[in-house]
Amino acid sequence: MSRAFFRPVLSLAAITCLFAGAAGAQERYSFDEETLEIVHALSEAGLDSDLAYELTEELTTVIGPRFAGTEQDVRARAWAVNRLTELGFENVRDEEFEMDFWTRGPFGAEEVYITAPFPQPLIATTLGGSAGTPDGGIEAEVVFFASFDDLVAYDDAPDALQGKIVYVNDRMVAAQNASGYSPANRKRTQAWFHAEDRGAVGVLVRSVGTSSNRFPHTGMMSRPEGRRATIPAMALAGPDADQMQRIHERGETITLRMSTQAGWRGRATSGNVIGEIVGSEAPEEIIVIGGHLDTWDNSPGALDDGSGVGITTAAAKLILDSGHRPRRTIRVVLFGAEEVGLLGARAYAQARVEDGTLDNHIIGSESDLGAGPVWRLTSNVAAHAYPFFDAMQVEMQHLGVLRGPNSGSGGPDIIPLQALGMPVARLQQDGMEIFEFHHTPNDTFDKIVPEEMAQNVAAWTMFTWFLADTEMQFREVAEE
Amino acid sequence: MSRAFFRPVLSLAAITCLFAGAAGAQERYSFDEETLEIVHALSEAGLDSDLAYELTEELTTVIGPRFAGTEQDVRARAWAVNRLTELGFENVRDEEFEMDFWTRGPFGAEEVYITAPFPQPLIATTLGGSAGTPDGGIEAEVVFFASFDDLVAYDDAPDALQGKIVYVNDRMVAAQNASGYSPANRKRTQAWFHAEDRGAVGVLVRSVGTSSNRFPHTGMMSRPEGRRATIPAMALAGPDADQMQRIHERGETITLRMSTQAGWRGRATSGNVIGEIVGSEAPEEIIVIGGHLDTWDNSPGALDDGSGVGITTAAAKLILDSGHRPRRTIRVVLFGAEEVGLLGARAYAQARVEDGTLDNHIIGSESDLGAGPVWRLTSNVAAHAYPFFDAMQVEMQHLGVLRGPNSGSGGPDIIPLQALGMPVARLQQDGMEIFEFHHTPNDTFDKIVPEEMAQNVAAWTMFTWFLADTEMQFREVAEE
Repeated sequence: MSRAFFRPVLSLAAITCLFAGAAGAQERYSFDEETLEIVHALSEAGLDSDLAYELTEELTTVIGPRFAGTEQDVRARAWAVNRLTELGFENVRDEEFEMDFWTRGPFGAEEVYITAPFPQPLIATTLGGSAGTPDGGIEAEVVFFASFDDLVAYDDAPDALQGKIVYVNDRMVAAQNASGYSPANRKRTQAWFHAEDRGAVGVLVRSVGTSSNRFPHTGMMSRPEGRRATIPAMALAGPDADQMQRIHERGETITLRMSTQAGWRGRATSGNVIGEIVGSEAPEEIIVIGGHLDTWDNSPGALDDGSGVGITTAAAKLILDSGHRPRRTIRVVLFGAEEVGLLGARAYAQARVEDGTLDNHIIGSESDLGAGPVWRLTSNVAAHAYPFFDAMQVEMQHLGVLRGPNSGSGGPDIIPLQALGMPVARLQQDGMEIFEFHHTPNDTFDKIVPEEMAQNVAAWTMFTWFLADTEMQFREVAEE
Repeated sequence: MSRAFFRPVLSLAAITCLFAGAAGAQERYSFDEETLEIVHALSEAGLDSDLAYELTEELTTVIGPRFAGTEQDVRARAWAVNRLTELGFENVRDEEFEMDFWTRGPFGAEEVYITAPFPQPLIATTLGGSAGTPDGGIEAEVVFFASFDDLVAYDDAPDALQGKIVYVNDRMVAAQNASGYSPANRKRTQAWFHAEDRGAVGVLVRSVGTSSNRFPHTGMMSRPEGRRATIPAMALAGPDADQMQRIHERGETITLRMSTQAGWRGRATSGNVIGEIVGSEAPEEIIVIGGHLDTWDNSPGALDDGSGVGITTAAAKLILDSGHRPRRTIRVVLFGAEEVGLLGARAYAQARVEDGTLDNHIIGSESDLGAGPVWRLTSNVAAHAYPFFDAMQVEMQHLGVLRGPNSGSGGPDIIPLQALGMPVARLQQDGMEIFEFHHTPNDTFDKIVPEEMAQNVAAWTMFTWFLADTEMQFREVAEE
């Protein structure tokens, strides 16, 4: 198992360094020799470590699916507390929070069936937040929209789609930076209220995701001002959406039956599991890294986000084992209830507002796009810190990591903290393949490539050390 | 859309011809100029034709799944009768037959759930012929067998597996000639009675098939001497079988719940749909080609065997449109109820015994391994006919078709006729990919590559003409 392709090629790194220096107008940042020695040793350890792979294997095998608020969520959090403790992290705890609880009901109770013109079953999944149907489902004529934009632009009279099932056929584009996800996702998150407001009795969309396998892609719908859907909302697998399209292109009017037992079912408890490496000189200053512990209900969530849990925990563990302790505190947060609306992330941010430690959060970053290789380091920090990130990237070139722009988020669970002013950065993972598996039943452990995961750990352990062992601040400096 | 790679390279064909002639001890067979002109024109027409693709699209879209004995089977046969008639075939008919009728019951009613040590749902499918379970399913401890052979070799006392669920973990090997299927399939077809005879209460197997996607592979179980299973029998998707294996390798005892509403449900009707091109000189002599019209209940069966229906119907239609009529009758048989035990094929053979036309069946062949490229021409004919087949293959070299051995079958639905003495041949399709999709929900139209399908049609239309327009007999000549 050769990992030679990730080893440092020092001469190339040095050459690129010179060019960066010559081309850049800003001052160049230089790490001291001791830092460089530590991060290069951490990188080697990361490439040689199977810990992320083992942790992900264990979480996905021993727990399996772990939908927020369920018994399996409880087991997953207990597992995480035990594991972080055994690995030697400090201040390990499970910060619980309450949440609204929605479930799809039994998997087998979901059905989409073409009743005319060509009777046949389709494979579909209920979207998060969908209403249930009466027993036996609803049956109605389909209005076919080629795109979400066509639905938005449609006649918005309250009876414009009265009694109809809205179908939206948008396709997602695969892209390295996952840029196809947000536009494609609008039909999942927003089509329901555009349909409901026009009198529709149901909404069905082509799955978000790029898979040509017959796996539907689930996910949460938006709840503008806390509103809850009163109609069923489901997503068809890609080949089933193709089937809809072929029937539509024959000029046929399609009638469908939709059936689901989904619904909101009171309140439930979830939690964020936290472990720390307490800083040696500035322990009150916190670097947040992590992934999310919960999954969708249809898979063991190996890529989403067992991998993020494994990668960031392993990266921190390598620092713990390095014989060096960083200046600042590294806080590994394994967020709860991400899939159902970033509920753990919101609870975490709220708790930091309440305990007054928000401003001690120096910077944060999450791993939550599978286990594919990190290809780019982005930041969203004050301008004075750009050279610091440029210098970090130079040291990661042997891993194939490029320097990305100073924009964007630090990952989904970092958004609430970023909204409260915390700087963020991200080790962006290749987004070409993840949407083959994401939010489908097919997100299983066998999809992870160990060598790619080890590259992630190497990048994360360097990244975390750089941020935790510096005096550099990443916020705008207040003018005096 | 370049199909240039399939065009005849005459010089290469000629060279190979010479070598074959030099190496072979037998006399070489030569086709006359007119035959060669006709088959080369047919090959060109085949490579340019979209008819097979269009027929398969139509069958899989307009009918969808078409499990034998169901309402969708009735619709499929009506479609086939109409389509063969419209295309200009003669003597179009639906030869109905009665059959035992088994169904899985509702898809959602199937469940395999690990109850200990790590509670989680697995994705499974009921195997054809399985018994149902009581409401709420059965729950029992698993005995893990690494292979089917291990199960067979296990203590065969009637209580050796009393009260247990048998799990068999064999993996299938992908191979160009599909040679991995038969050995892997033994656990699907035979594990149930080895388990039942030892007192087991259920049987679960790793899916036959090579897919690492989370689709379980269904299929019929054997019924030795008409015996019916009294225990439930199911197959796990590949990643779920991996999960079982990982838990087992932790040294844990696994307890499972299995639930299915499968069962035998009286009698039903299916049928073989037939269309002909009546021969010009020897109309009583019959060349049988075709595919099977029925599918498993979990997919529209694009590869298995919508493709075979499309390919062989299109190949015959090209002959119909060629302006030439062959000496013998070409009979396209779209068999019914293949998946549930070659019931249509058996009914067809029995009917020919009864109507006295069996000996008029000169040779037969079926297309039933998807839509991947034909790579080899095999035969199972009398020795005097080898040179005829060798010469056929030489003319198909521009399509990449090699000469295979004189052994094996002409396809599943040809087996009963072969058992009654009919010679067979086969245009073997590449078997490396088909078992990613075969008998799973993922066997959908998008998996077909149009250019590969056209290569099949070109090979089939040449093959069919060669066999139908000759005086060559393929049976052993009786000694006088």
